[in-house]
Amino acid sequence: MNKNIDINTNISVNDISYKMYQLISELFPICRSITGDGLRKTLYILQKHIPLAIHDIPSGTEVFDWTIPKEWNIKDAFIKNSQGKKIINFQNSNLHVVNYSVKINEKMPLPDLKEHLFTLPDCPDWIPYRTSYYKENWGFCLSHNQLLELKDEEYEVFIDSSLENGHLTYGEYYIKGEKADEVLISCHICHPSLCNDNLSGIALAAFLAKHLSQLSLSYSYRFIFIPGTIGSITWLALNEANVDKIKHGLVITCVGDSGKSHYKKSRRGNAEIDKAVTHVLKSSGQDYEIMEFSPYGYDERQFCSPGFNLPVGCFMRSPHGTYPQYHTSADNLELVQPQYLADSLSKVLSVLNIIENNKKYLNQNPKCEPQLGKRGLYSAIGGQTDTKKNEMAMLWVLNLSDGNHTLLDIAEKSGLEFDIIKKTADTLLDFNLLKACLE
Amino acid sequence: MNKNIDINTNISVNDISYKMYQLISELFPICRSITGDGLRKTLYILQKHIPLAIHDIPSGTEVFDWTIPKEWNIKDAFIKNSQGKKIINFQNSNLHVVNYSVKINEKMPLPDLKEHLFTLPDCPDWIPYRTSYYKENWGFCLSHNQLLELKDEEYEVFIDSSLENGHLTYGEYYIKGEKADEVLISCHICHPSLCNDNLSGIALAAFLAKHLSQLSLSYSYRFIFIPGTIGSITWLALNEANVDKIKHGLVITCVGDSGKSHYKKSRRGNAEIDKAVTHVLKSSGQDYEIMEFSPYGYDERQFCSPGFNLPVGCFMRSPHGTYPQYHTSADNLELVQPQYLADSLSKVLSVLNIIENNKKYLNQNPKCEPQLGKRGLYSAIGGQTDTKKNEMAMLWVLNLSDGNHTLLDIAEKSGLEFDIIKKTADTLLDFNLLKACLE
Amino acid sequence: MNKNIDINTNISVNDISYKMYQLISELFPICRSITGDGLRKTLYILQKHIPLAIHDIPSGTEVFDWTIPKEWNIKDAFIKNSQGKKIINFQNSNLHVVNYSVKINEKMPLPDLKEHLFTLPDCPDWIPYRTSYYKENWGFCLSHNQLLELKDEEYEVFIDSSLENGHLTYGEYYIKGEKADEVLISCHICHPSLCNDNLSGIALAAFLAKHLSQLSLSYSYRFIFIPGTIGSITWLALNEANVDKIKHGLVITCVGDSGKSHYKKSRRGNAEIDKAVTHVLKSSGQDYEIMEFSPYGYDERQFCSPGFNLPVGCFMRSPHGTYPQYHTSADNLELVQPQYLADSLSKVLSVLNIIENNKKYLNQNPKCEPQLGKRGLYSAIGGQTDTKKNEMAMLWVLNLSDGNHTLLDIAEKSGLEFDIIKKTADTLLDFNLLKACLE
Repeated sequence: MNKNIDINTNISVNDISYKMYQLISELFPICRSITGDGLRKTLYILQKHIPLAIHDIPSGTEVFDWTIPKEWNIKDAFIKNSQGKKIINFQNSNLHVVNYSVKINEKMPLPDLKEHLFTLPDCPDWIPYRTSYYKENWGFCLSHNQLLELKDEEYEVFIDSSLENGHLTYGEYYIKGEKADEVLISCHICHPSLCNDNLSGIALAAFLAKHLSQLSLSYSYRFIFIPGTIGSITWLALNEANVDKIKHGLVITCVGDSGKSHYKKSRRGNAEIDKAVTHVLKSSGQDYEIMEFSPYGYDERQFCSPGFNLPVGCFMRSPHGTYPQYHTSADNLELVQPQYLADSLSKVLSVLNIIENNKKYLNQNPKCEPQLGKRGLYSAIGGQTDTKKNEMAMLWVLNLSDGNHTLLDIAEKSGLEFDIIKKTADTLLDFNLLKACLE
Repeated sequence: MNKNIDINTNISVNDISYKMYQLISELFPICRSITGDGLRKTLYILQKHIPLAIHDIPSGTEVFDWTIPKEWNIKDAFIKNSQGKKIINFQNSNLHVVNYSVKINEKMPLPDLKEHLFTLPDCPDWIPYRTSYYKENWGFCLSHNQLLELKDEEYEVFIDSSLENGHLTYGEYYIKGEKADEVLISCHICHPSLCNDNLSGIALAAFLAKHLSQLSLSYSYRFIFIPGTIGSITWLALNEANVDKIKHGLVITCVGDSGKSHYKKSRRGNAEIDKAVTHVLKSSGQDYEIMEFSPYGYDERQFCSPGFNLPVGCFMRSPHGTYPQYHTSADNLELVQPQYLADSLSKVLSVLNIIENNKKYLNQNPKCEPQLGKRGLYSAIGGQTDTKKNEMAMLWVLNLSDGNHTLLDIAEKSGLEFDIIKKTADTLLDFNLLKACLE
Repeated sequence: MNKNIDINTNISVNDISYKMYQLISELFPICRSITGDGLRKTLYILQKHIPLAIHDIPSGTEVFDWTIPKEWNIKDAFIKNSQGKKIINFQNSNLHVVNYSVKINEKMPLPDLKEHLFTLPDCPDWIPYRTSYYKENWGFCLSHNQLLELKDEEYEVFIDSSLENGHLTYGEYYIKGEKADEVLISCHICHPSLCNDNLSGIALAAFLAKHLSQLSLSYSYRFIFIPGTIGSITWLALNEANVDKIKHGLVITCVGDSGKSHYKKSRRGNAEIDKAVTHVLKSSGQDYEIMEFSPYGYDERQFCSPGFNLPVGCFMRSPHGTYPQYHTSADNLELVQPQYLADSLSKVLSVLNIIENNKKYLNQNPKCEPQLGKRGLYSAIGGQTDTKKNEMAMLWVLNLSDGNHTLLDIAEKSGLEFDIIKKTADTLLDFNLLKACLE
């Protein structure tokens, strides 16, 4: 057991944040959905950064209570007015078409058309994002201002899409660590031109994976890039026999906006990952919010369903539905910025650093304090008012290393940061004052 | 197990509140005590509404550490001044005589008389209510203003009462439910012309019993109308063998005044009844107060004595001793109003509705969410910011129906009202997505 | 088991406070250290008050990870300027010499001398207290103003001290109680002319011991007067086999200044001593502070090391390092005052009174309340709004005397003071309404 795992080693979070932003920019124009070519193209681009395994699961496959739907692909779509002018054009924004819209080529009067139009009256300049995965339908999304300009005339509605037996596609990358126990990192990849939700999560996960693959780690890490809901259900159905290896996990999403960090706890509520993220956010000196588990949100809904109840929380900045740009055309390359991506990555690295190093130790001199002074670990001149932080850390680690307290427990009880507690434990190990507990 | 128990069905709380007030008005003039004809007359009047069994237990019967006292009855009482004028007259208010006063017919000077007079100097217009059950004595209660007017002359003191072997009387009404487990509803019936304490409780219990008797219920219900302290001690002594059937209970008192709702928890402090009342009061949108158990108050003192420790709390509006009219002539037909009786009844019904329906269920698709959309239970258009309350309720019920959470637990965790959670569980049962846990 | 132990009996805390102050004044001039003649002289003076056993443990003895150091003694020390004037003189204040300074007799220029001088720039009139127990060194402490006046000339430095094989000395006083279970009272005795830290603790412990020795007690009491750190380590090493007799303990220090009372909990955090002190401070009506355990401070560091984890807390007024006079010449006979010593002693007595009397009882009439009225324990006239405090106390003691609640638990639950609860239990015992639980 290498005591010197330091996940923050050899990484410039700032440099990486620009690469993340670049990747987001590259992925932005692609029309993704829960199946189809956009999804595959996205995974191919990720393969340029990490050696992702790509899995294709056939339509019709039963996964728990669900069935993998037909594959949806789209080439073009528009609405033409009576003058033949394309007033809505899929080529301008893939949000214009309700995701999973079926093929159509018809003329119809405005009232009929309106039943298939979606807008945001409160944000009249923005195009909403809408889907109809599990009920065959078609529709267009447009800005409310555009809707108001539509004249009462006949329109030509054209969607060149296909909904046919095909596959659901997802990517998976496994990094083998010292032990078989796993940390799961999951992000959804089914959203079209939306940046924060969830290209930011994809980029963070990809570069995190790339960094971790260069380290020698204790845990094994499993990264999954999956379509939302049906993707996690599919993955869980196919990997049901192995999920008990997952000891910690994070769903990563909406990590590129300027909002404060949010963490939604796992269903267990007091899992080690919950404590680790809480410690990191509390120690950050920044505003943050810890949310109790709720069964709505992202794929933690599935990981935390009662039959699995995995210790998986959700790491975010602004949570879904709480920022105005959520699921609109305003969730774009302006909303997401490198500095926020950097901050999010940095926090996730700190969390994983805790997870990797959160061991229990045994004080080898449990009766009274060991004499730190004779080992050069303690100030020789006594009587002073101040005690140095590192001396306090030594006293805390020695006092609580009784086999019942992890380093994170000690950090929490002492009010000191995990990093200081960890470095102190390493020093005490060097002096044979501590011994690692067998796991 | 009928999943559709709805205790609030077929009841107009408003109509009943006027009937409760009418009953209170009818019972008000009667001179009740812990034994005697006033008590019997009260129970006979209640029999016009519910088929009460009336029990007479002989004086001298030993009940735990106590002995049932002699029966007290009173025909008349007065104090005449030296001019022969009745300046205090029992016929005007039965509060004028200290309850359980022994017979007397004597002349005495003012100083001697004063040792037997009770007043309220701080509320000089009101007559206090005093008792001397267990020490033979006599006395009169009067307004402090009346006392100040008494001249230093000789008075004729007359009490035509009897204290003889007889009976302690109480009423009991048992409503058989599907199971033998019982809910106990208790109120004291020993107070003379006092409305809130406790004609309000008597009226609420009587009409609650009448309503429940018309329903098909899971629990059996036992209503007891008993004199305070000695009545509950007697009842517990006679029914000691069966008290373990009592799974929940409420002492109901002071439920007709304008004060906010108060609930004093059972000695256990976290009994299901404690949680149910807390949920109802919290969900009411009104101000309320939850009080920890204390060994002073009403008959919960006996039900919660350490040898029984029954899960019985006390449901009130203004608690005893906290409102100025308490135990005075001002606790009258003005203090109690139909609207407050209605509100109290409505809350008790909601509490019992929780108790009746607070089951645990098992999600039949515990691994990942079941697909609600294909059953028409979930919105077909995805991507919207808002989730409907009933969809959230379904997700919560499914996520927490792991056999460990009652519907009330789910209501508390989700922040949703019990009624919504209950209706949602019914819907999910209809779709075979849930199954009730065996008890 | 004598139910009438009252630790506050036959003691005038006020009178004693002046004796404590007198003792502090007598001990003040002595130059104490962790070994040596000053320590012995201090213990001899204490023997005038209590029959202290004095133990001498040889230098070189191994005690856990430590070795008892050589014995240090000092006869004289000074610094002379070039005119031969003693500008620093040990005879004026023993704080002038760094404790454990080795012998020196040399002339040196100011820059060389300065490396061995300690001052307090922020409190330029005060002399700091410094030690160098475990690293051979020498030094002088002086006021910062004195330092600023030193001219750049040659100085004669003279310390006539010895550091030779000898002994570590400590005092111990055991008071045998009814049972072998012990209460440990510990204070450190190694500080030279410093009053609050810790002559105040020594004086309090000595007079507390004297008082307790006159009573008939349930617990046995062990008082130890030890040099800090090495003293408690030595004591624990020599008495390791018997420490499991220690059921409660207090380190007493800094109890004579005007600051509010502080209590640092034992490492267990919820030991009976922790609850008892908390109750006393909460009931005092004065401001106070309860501190969580931390592994820095006084000898509780050793008693609460993980291999012992004894239920020992630390009782103080202003904690170490939090008042400006701490470890300076301003911790003198003005800082400590009899009234604060009295208040501290009074609180410690109340704590020990709880510890002595904190039994569990069994209500002998657990089913319903016993009839207190027929025993003359309860007011005969009923119906009044107020209930007397002693009647409430009886109801609480009866209700919670189920074998699971100590008297302190009952005091806490009822919000009443321990003394009232204790007296009430005694009364109920007299009436055979309670029975003590077997331990």
